[in-house]
Amino acid sequence: MNVLITGAAGFLGARLARHLLRRGQLSGERIDGLILADLYAPPADLLADPRVRVFTGALMAQSAALAAERFDAVFHLAAAVSAECEADFDLGMRSNLDSTRALLDALRAAGNVPRFMFASSVAVFGPDPGLPMPPVVRDETLPTPQSSYGIQKFICEQLVADYTRKGFIDGRNIRLMTVVVRPGRPNGAASGFLSGIIREPVNGLPAVCPVSQETKVALASPARTIEGLIAVSEASREALGGRTAVNLPALTVSVGEMLNALEAVAGAKARSLVSFEPDPKIARMVGGWPAVFDLSRAERLGLKPDPDFISIVRQYIDDRAAESSTRS
Amino acid sequence: MNVLITGAAGFLGARLARHLLRRGQLSGERIDGLILADLYAPPADLLADPRVRVFTGALMAQSAALAAERFDAVFHLAAAVSAECEADFDLGMRSNLDSTRALLDALRAAGNVPRFMFASSVAVFGPDPGLPMPPVVRDETLPTPQSSYGIQKFICEQLVADYTRKGFIDGRNIRLMTVVVRPGRPNGAASGFLSGIIREPVNGLPAVCPVSQETKVALASPARTIEGLIAVSEASREALGGRTAVNLPALTVSVGEMLNALEAVAGAKARSLVSFEPDPKIARMVGGWPAVFDLSRAERLGLKPDPDFISIVRQYIDDRAAESSTRS
Repeated sequence: MNVLITGAAGFLGARLARHLLRRGQLSGERIDGLILADLYAPPADLLADPRVRVFTGALMAQSAALAAERFDAVFHLAAAVSAECEADFDLGMRSNLDSTRALLDALRAAGNVPRFMFASSVAVFGPDPGLPMPPVVRDETLPTPQSSYGIQKFICEQLVADYTRKGFIDGRNIRLMTVVVRPGRPNGAASGFLSGIIREPVNGLPAVCPVSQETKVALASPARTIEGLIAVSEASREALGGRTAVNLPALTVSVGEMLNALEAVAGAKARSLVSFEPDPKIARMVGGWPAVFDLSRAERLGLKPDPDFISIVRQYIDDRAAESSTRS
Repeated sequence: MNVLITGAAGFLGARLARHLLRRGQLSGERIDGLILADLYAPPADLLADPRVRVFTGALMAQSAALAAERFDAVFHLAAAVSAECEADFDLGMRSNLDSTRALLDALRAAGNVPRFMFASSVAVFGPDPGLPMPPVVRDETLPTPQSSYGIQKFICEQLVADYTRKGFIDGRNIRLMTVVVRPGRPNGAASGFLSGIIREPVNGLPAVCPVSQETKVALASPARTIEGLIAVSEASREALGGRTAVNLPALTVSVGEMLNALEAVAGAKARSLVSFEPDPKIARMVGGWPAVFDLSRAERLGLKPDPDFISIVRQYIDDRAAESSTRS
């Protein structure tokens, strides 16, 4: 089978590509070709695999070439991030909405009805001025996105649902939680500090937390997020239970609990590197995100949230060690 | 003030135009110009009013010209209907999604932030395979559209909400119920028979009902629908209570109750012109539409459903008499 990953040079895209290459199969079918599409070239270890081919450039410009391919599964992760979309409205519409539609139309033109996993986001949820968020968010909770990024993701969910209903693709809308701990540098997302307050101290660097210790957030580790994408891709349509988006499982923790876990794993000195500088704007945004999710549909698909935040901190430390041994 | 109506040659568009011209003002401001845009020319009585100007042609092609205008209020009613969108997917995407976006971008380019009333539809609701409809539909019920028309309307609601949040327009999403009694010929919508079983017998013609007498539906008269559009356009943002769509009030009646009203107004002979020929496909579609709505938000805006179906039948007969006296 041939698998396409868009956004394959990104953190999650490259991780998914490595996972699929190691796994060798999807839904029991051998992966013969893995096509990685991104604005940038993916990491060297991926390029070295003979099953990998690369499409570099804007997705919009590649749709004609993609329409000439045959894909059995597509993981569509490419997107401009929330801060970019908020700063440049037209960029977000082009990168997130128009590109997704061009990709869907390319697949429709090719006529091979692949499984299509759309990486949507918990960012579809936000408190509309007239509609407070329910205490527990379910798959059937009405999203009222409060950012252009969230609106674009929610619109693409609708497209994926209708292209699926029409039989153009076999689409699955998958809402990713805030993924923690992201490696590397802050990417400018408002949620960035949730990785930063763990990543920087573990690396001996200071970090600033803009919200109070009591703030509750819904998180998932990179490994659980990839598991979720794979599980939804392998589920039957009956098991999925409809075309509405699946919220991936989330671990609900307070920022204080995150720092307790940091201390338990990396010591009191690491924790002491985190200082609090309240930022009302970020606190308001983060406070508007849902923190508690009903997990019943995801659990029926065999998915579970991370067991605790300590395991998430350990996953980051282990990943970092594995990466530095690969590099050396 | 200048007001734009798109879809102004249609049944509701022309009725709204007449209503605004008679009223002479909106939100207490005198209407100096009424711009009517449609594929076709609007009726002659509208063209005769000195305040009226006409843009004829596809909305997409007119966006540059519209961007050069200054509008204080826009009623965006233009759309391809549900049956067209289901038969020709690309036509629906172009007529309903791309045209709306082109109009929004034209207004944004003009920079005058008009009130923008988007005529969405009860067709955003439908039973997703995995998600049965709740017995009472509220404004915060998650729409899971089961038609391309419904998907396109729901996507446009998202655009209107985000263009509003960004300050490009002052948008209001208004979900119209099934409007009954439509004059003229059947327009190919699956809901067409709901007008037909009243309109044809009143005019001495036979009509076929494809669903059972027990089938419940949610309806609104043309007059109440226009009242709803006006009321939402005049509401303050605070009164609106957020950017999510407002479901206009609906009268819930069974088909049997509709026919009882027909008989009460037009006699037993009129009712005897309606025969039943079950059509499982239409019965399934209509059965999937919500029949009962929570009206609390619409009521806070001063809106009420039609009091009963007898008044809806009378409204049709009165309108028909008024129109024939205008023509003669």
